[in-house]
Amino acid sequence: MSSANSDKFGPPKRFQDTSESVWVEYVALALKHKPKVNLGQGFPDYAPPHYVTEALSEVSHGNHLLNQYTRGFGHPRLVQAIAKLYSHLIGREINPNTEVLVTVGAYQSLYSAITGHVDDGDEVIIIEPFYDCYYDQIKSAGGVVRSIALKPTKSGVLSAADWKLDPVEFEKLFNEKTKAIILNTPHNPLGKVFKLDELEMIADLCKKWNVLVISDEVYEHMVFEPAKHIRINTLPGMWERTITIGSAGKTFSVTGWKLGWSYGPANLLRNLQLVHQNAVYTCATPLQEATAMAFEFELTRLNSSESFFKSLAVELTDKRDYMAKFLTETGFQVTLPEAGYFMIADWSHNADKVDLSSESDEFKDYRFTKWMTKNISLQGIPPSAFYTKPNKHLGENYIRFCYIKNDETLHDAAKILKDWYSK
Amino acid sequence: MSSANSDKFGPPKRFQDTSESVWVEYVALALKHKPKVNLGQGFPDYAPPHYVTEALSEVSHGNHLLNQYTRGFGHPRLVQAIAKLYSHLIGREINPNTEVLVTVGAYQSLYSAITGHVDDGDEVIIIEPFYDCYYDQIKSAGGVVRSIALKPTKSGVLSAADWKLDPVEFEKLFNEKTKAIILNTPHNPLGKVFKLDELEMIADLCKKWNVLVISDEVYEHMVFEPAKHIRINTLPGMWERTITIGSAGKTFSVTGWKLGWSYGPANLLRNLQLVHQNAVYTCATPLQEATAMAFEFELTRLNSSESFFKSLAVELTDKRDYMAKFLTETGFQVTLPEAGYFMIADWSHNADKVDLSSESDEFKDYRFTKWMTKNISLQGIPPSAFYTKPNKHLGENYIRFCYIKNDETLHDAAKILKDWYSK
Repeated sequence: MSSANSDKFGPPKRFQDTSESVWVEYVALALKHKPKVNLGQGFPDYAPPHYVTEALSEVSHGNHLLNQYTRGFGHPRLVQAIAKLYSHLIGREINPNTEVLVTVGAYQSLYSAITGHVDDGDEVIIIEPFYDCYYDQIKSAGGVVRSIALKPTKSGVLSAADWKLDPVEFEKLFNEKTKAIILNTPHNPLGKVFKLDELEMIADLCKKWNVLVISDEVYEHMVFEPAKHIRINTLPGMWERTITIGSAGKTFSVTGWKLGWSYGPANLLRNLQLVHQNAVYTCATPLQEATAMAFEFELTRLNSSESFFKSLAVELTDKRDYMAKFLTETGFQVTLPEAGYFMIADWSHNADKVDLSSESDEFKDYRFTKWMTKNISLQGIPPSAFYTKPNKHLGENYIRFCYIKNDETLHDAAKILKDWYSK
Repeated sequence: MSSANSDKFGPPKRFQDTSESVWVEYVALALKHKPKVNLGQGFPDYAPPHYVTEALSEVSHGNHLLNQYTRGFGHPRLVQAIAKLYSHLIGREINPNTEVLVTVGAYQSLYSAITGHVDDGDEVIIIEPFYDCYYDQIKSAGGVVRSIALKPTKSGVLSAADWKLDPVEFEKLFNEKTKAIILNTPHNPLGKVFKLDELEMIADLCKKWNVLVISDEVYEHMVFEPAKHIRINTLPGMWERTITIGSAGKTFSVTGWKLGWSYGPANLLRNLQLVHQNAVYTCATPLQEATAMAFEFELTRLNSSESFFKSLAVELTDKRDYMAKFLTETGFQVTLPEAGYFMIADWSHNADKVDLSSESDEFKDYRFTKWMTKNISLQGIPPSAFYTKPNKHLGENYIRFCYIKNDETLHDAAKILKDWYSK
């Protein structure tokens, strides 16, 4: 008779090399050190649009059945709204019942797409830096990660558009075992918006090798002029091999609602449904109803300048420019994002201003970000978390900041950095 | 160059024998036929307690940061409340940060417990009839299902307490490959509350064979006098090998909020956290805050008769008795539940009153329930969905009804059955 603490209760093999999540670690860091300014995790520190929270309030006072289970693959009112929006955006009639799946955030859409399609030994291509959950999700499905890094193609003042794939190196990743590629456009953390020729190169290889595209497009409505978001599912022959993922959290500035969706052809979504009905069965009804109401409202003003999908991008352009300015003024070299709400900045020219010897992490950006949180009360995220082990060094000179924050918060960040820089 | 519709995009092996979910099928059936009375899925058709929906309304007007991400393993205010309640109930101090995990319903707790502990080839024991997701969750984790059926130990007027395990047959299920057993008490669909001697038999075998217990106790607060709910984690030597699962949906009559939790020793919960951070990362903040507020309110009146945990059981006792009466009067033989909000009834004495030849399902209870929905506009659930293939015949003579419904709804059901029976 052995103890319950024996090795028998370790995690299954598929989870044995799950890494410590950078989010779990940095949320704990913030809870412990309470930095004055936290530009780490990506969420606004100001209120979402009033009509969005008002919708939730209305639901809480409305039909009490909205507190009970709804349809497993998506609340009818919400899948209708999602299908209507994307039918318009991609110029193709989407079936709300078979071509849309509502999930617990875009995060669970990624999980369901990967777990529902990747079998033991299947290869999945990811583009570095990448949103960190891709890696563990592929590994837990038994998949093999193949990766390639976007690299800056020039030095000096950079735009996210200057970070590119090497086409020769990229093509070499494809072979008969390639099951899927995860595309992220607009891209986190770079803020890169993939251009038509870049998407065509990816699409052509996916068609050549019969590869599925999982397209994470959660920043689709935060694209700054003159960049244009192109959905890869609109390229010839691509609808039938693409699962596209969106997020209510990003779209309506309510990351805590944890609602997202996948849309694509029914035969590909079927596999996601299997995972979904196995893992959660259904999503929260009141939040789905409120999100549907928010979408319906936006659908009435889609082409007006009041559209939140347009006004948010305008608002974020100003915040981006403000952050780029104060970072540049304090010795950071920024990559100017074309979209989204993150900016990466090279801190290596400031290396002489910090003493990282008190930090023991393997990678310099972890040491730098922890030093900042503890010593100047400003939190960012270490980008090496977004690289595979062999390429983590590519992220070590950078820090990721989030700029969807109150102007006062950004002023405070600027002041902290200016005080530090001028010492 | 092959087509995107090729076999390459079928589901991975681990999902290939996922069965059609009875919920997906019967929700679709109800959407199509719109039965006058739906006693299928388990949720109340009346309003949840007012303070619960009021809490959500307050949150929607409150601190806007409650619309953003919260701590991944559980919103601080909610894990505090859960730890406080169960510390009191089990007489042991529970650490809110390491011994509680908040999940997307009890459903995702089950998924995380099974996926986080069951490796390829591990055997998992389940007790039939069982909540159907257990089976697919074990299979998708690579586990091997070993099962045993509860059987009525007498004929005639039955109580759920009369359904028992054969101890000899039960012991034979345990061996060196046994990783876990899933216990469900109070039991769905029988409404059985496992007694101390039954739990001790299970506990002794789990200790003997070093087996994990996943204890699904979502009906813990709906136990009818004189039955008493005993938590297996309070038995000697059992805390350290038990993960216990609860549900806000069941506890506060808000199944659509999709919040549940697991609690247990930190080393066992760690594996669930791995799955959780891989699949969803975090749960909805506003619903967690509102649930925490509801718990805090109940914690102030835990031992008073106003406690919802007590008043709901009293209310359900009346509904149970009413349903048992009208079912008995219309030729069904019921098993009187000791807990929960489901009742199974043997319909075989009414077999001559239905013509099932128009239905093509393999199992009689599927044919009977579909016939009822279509012909007399009353929906129930076929219990064979809750058995493994070799034992499905054990469920064929039964139908499961839910009685957490308005008195008017139950009157309507009684009327439908009486009209039908008297024809």
